[in-house]
Amino acid sequence: MSPLDLPLDSSLLGRYLETLGRCGVLPEGGIFRPLYSRPWAEARGQLRAWMEAIGLEVHGDAVGNLFGRLNGDGKGVILTGSHLDTVKQGGRFDGALGILAGLVAVKTLREAAGRPRRPIEVLATCEEEGSRFHSHMWGARAILGMIEPGETESHRDADGVTIGQAMWECGLNPAEIPRARREDIQAFLELHIEQGPILEAEDVAVGVVTAITGITQLTVRVTGQADHAGTTPMDLRRDALVGASRMVGEIAGLARKLGRPAVATVGTARVLPGAVNIVPGEVEFTVDLRHPEPMTKTDLVRALETRCREIAAELRLGCEIHPLVDIAGTPLDPALVDLLEEVLRARGTRYKLMVSGAGHDAQIFAPRIPTAMLFVPSRGGRSHSPSEFTSVEQAMVGIAALAAALYRLAYT
Amino acid sequence: MSPLDLPLDSSLLGRYLETLGRCGVLPEGGIFRPLYSRPWAEARGQLRAWMEAIGLEVHGDAVGNLFGRLNGDGKGVILTGSHLDTVKQGGRFDGALGILAGLVAVKTLREAAGRPRRPIEVLATCEEEGSRFHSHMWGARAILGMIEPGETESHRDADGVTIGQAMWECGLNPAEIPRARREDIQAFLELHIEQGPILEAEDVAVGVVTAITGITQLTVRVTGQADHAGTTPMDLRRDALVGASRMVGEIAGLARKLGRPAVATVGTARVLPGAVNIVPGEVEFTVDLRHPEPMTKTDLVRALETRCREIAAELRLGCEIHPLVDIAGTPLDPALVDLLEEVLRARGTRYKLMVSGAGHDAQIFAPRIPTAMLFVPSRGGRSHSPSEFTSVEQAMVGIAALAAALYRLAYT
Repeated sequence: MSPLDLPLDSSLLGRYLETLGRCGVLPEGGIFRPLYSRPWAEARGQLRAWMEAIGLEVHGDAVGNLFGRLNGDGKGVILTGSHLDTVKQGGRFDGALGILAGLVAVKTLREAAGRPRRPIEVLATCEEEGSRFHSHMWGARAILGMIEPGETESHRDADGVTIGQAMWECGLNPAEIPRARREDIQAFLELHIEQGPILEAEDVAVGVVTAITGITQLTVRVTGQADHAGTTPMDLRRDALVGASRMVGEIAGLARKLGRPAVATVGTARVLPGAVNIVPGEVEFTVDLRHPEPMTKTDLVRALETRCREIAAELRLGCEIHPLVDIAGTPLDPALVDLLEEVLRARGTRYKLMVSGAGHDAQIFAPRIPTAMLFVPSRGGRSHSPSEFTSVEQAMVGIAALAAALYRLAYT
Repeated sequence: MSPLDLPLDSSLLGRYLETLGRCGVLPEGGIFRPLYSRPWAEARGQLRAWMEAIGLEVHGDAVGNLFGRLNGDGKGVILTGSHLDTVKQGGRFDGALGILAGLVAVKTLREAAGRPRRPIEVLATCEEEGSRFHSHMWGARAILGMIEPGETESHRDADGVTIGQAMWECGLNPAEIPRARREDIQAFLELHIEQGPILEAEDVAVGVVTAITGITQLTVRVTGQADHAGTTPMDLRRDALVGASRMVGEIAGLARKLGRPAVATVGTARVLPGAVNIVPGEVEFTVDLRHPEPMTKTDLVRALETRCREIAAELRLGCEIHPLVDIAGTPLDPALVDLLEEVLRARGTRYKLMVSGAGHDAQIFAPRIPTAMLFVPSRGGRSHSPSEFTSVEQAMVGIAALAAALYRLAYT
């Protein structure tokens, strides 16, 4: 049995995607499967049925993660999967594809290669997106014993319901969260849509993720003086928006100059007082800046802060910079990256090593358990949108590599 | 009797400002005297009493303008004054000072020089600011017969009350508006605070206004593509805010390059979708652009539109430009400007010729009746704000020039 010959069932993937894509459809278009909601539970029930149908032992844990296990002789579990929850007005592929990929791969492995030397489990995590409780990667953190005791009370949804209350309503006991912790996982492989345009733009079939990027988010508050737009000559103004605009240009320029995978984005800006005929006295904007290398990210943040302060000083403006978020980049496991490259080369698949610019459950696993990720292309780079799309054919190229890697990890 | 020796009463001005400044005080600071409101009526009653006390014949017209007349032999009236209404959270000086200046000047003229050859009237106009009904320069337009029949029904305040209903509630009959028209005005002189920083910055006592600027207001809508801020490389983005920011810089630069009195202001900007981690797909901002010369203003608007479209094309963005407002500049009367310069030179007052960057009742009069304006300094250029301030001493320098000019126009 060579992993090159695994007879993967692409029509099964098509049916899975079609069926799961109906769980949580919104009248306005797109999908929403918030944690512990009815569409989430419906999707979870569907997955449980599929897992049983392909001969896996199913168990749910204390927070609602779902595992389908193909038992093996050893103890160390080879884990694969992704998240079942979606953002609001999300698509069919973000998260879901990684779970379904695991089912397709493991079904074929079981049928073609029988009982593995090490157990394989297909995992559906929950609240990766944080779309209901802003409790990102809740399921993955539970598996790794990283949930703090107070979290069940502190995370609330938009209606004020705590995540603990919502658990009770789903038949889950918050006191049992520590029992979700797993100590037997030997490796984690996550297949995911890229959610960006690089693979499509470069006509590459698969991305092997070497690291998940680090994120710094800041607010920059630029203060000048609000003045009458008619009576204040240009040379006597302290226009906060003129200053902020130069900063926006410089921030984008710094990331562009550094090159991929550096990105920097000003996504929001508030102009005050905000009248057609008043010179802006204050502008507050946010910066989202990403790089996988902590040192490079720090240098980029410093350069950005320096340039903003220089521009402010030159234009006689005030400039306050406040941190919002700082998450270090996470390197993935070099040995697993090597393994993925090896199976892709063996299959003759056009792939590239790349950094994930978005966060994933894999970044929770990676510091503790050997972890790797595979990306498949996203049409137009679209994600978190009803227009999210990856063809079954594109997905199958990634699933073939996943199956081959699982074979190497669990059977050899 | 030389107009240089008029014994003007500065303590009277101080008392007037103090008393009128209590009409419409807001609990949060500043003044608000919206048209036909109780504070407006209270202020108008106070003015009426003062006009009578200094020996003027008082009459109100059909829309609520108030006139205090020092009668003379001839028919052509020399008119001076400004507006009694204020913006919300306005100051004590905007408008009010021009009325009180007229009272102080005319009281002294009457006492020192007796009955003039031509009648002088001190005028308090209404709804110049348009703060209640957005019906700018309502009082001045009534005097010049420029109110359209439908306006009494079409202008509504924030509570939906039409300007016609509000007139009835004040005892004014909208059907009589045409009777407010005056055909007997020979000249109009308006003293006003500068509302800008130029006189203070240059340590000049009085501004003689040669023209009221023209205004073009536009919206610019820049469209790119909303993308994930983590997964979209800088080189594959179409970031609407990066484009809009360059446009903001260019717009300010065009006005700066042209020099005074050109101004251009981006006062509002809306960034969509407006999330920290999403590349902006759309930005809509407003431009307020002013120049007194119609040709120059048109050239500036065209240059601005061209640069915005060039930047959009370069960055693969869409760019739509829509007009909001287009008001031509208004030259004031050269002979009256000469007269004001003459009296200022005779008094040895440091003055400068300047353009008004803000709109005034004078721009309604100017195309039909010889009109001029005098500016006195605004501390820090502040206006439409509780921090608006002009000292009695600074105001008196302007009032002395006003009195001398009124003397020349009415007595000689």
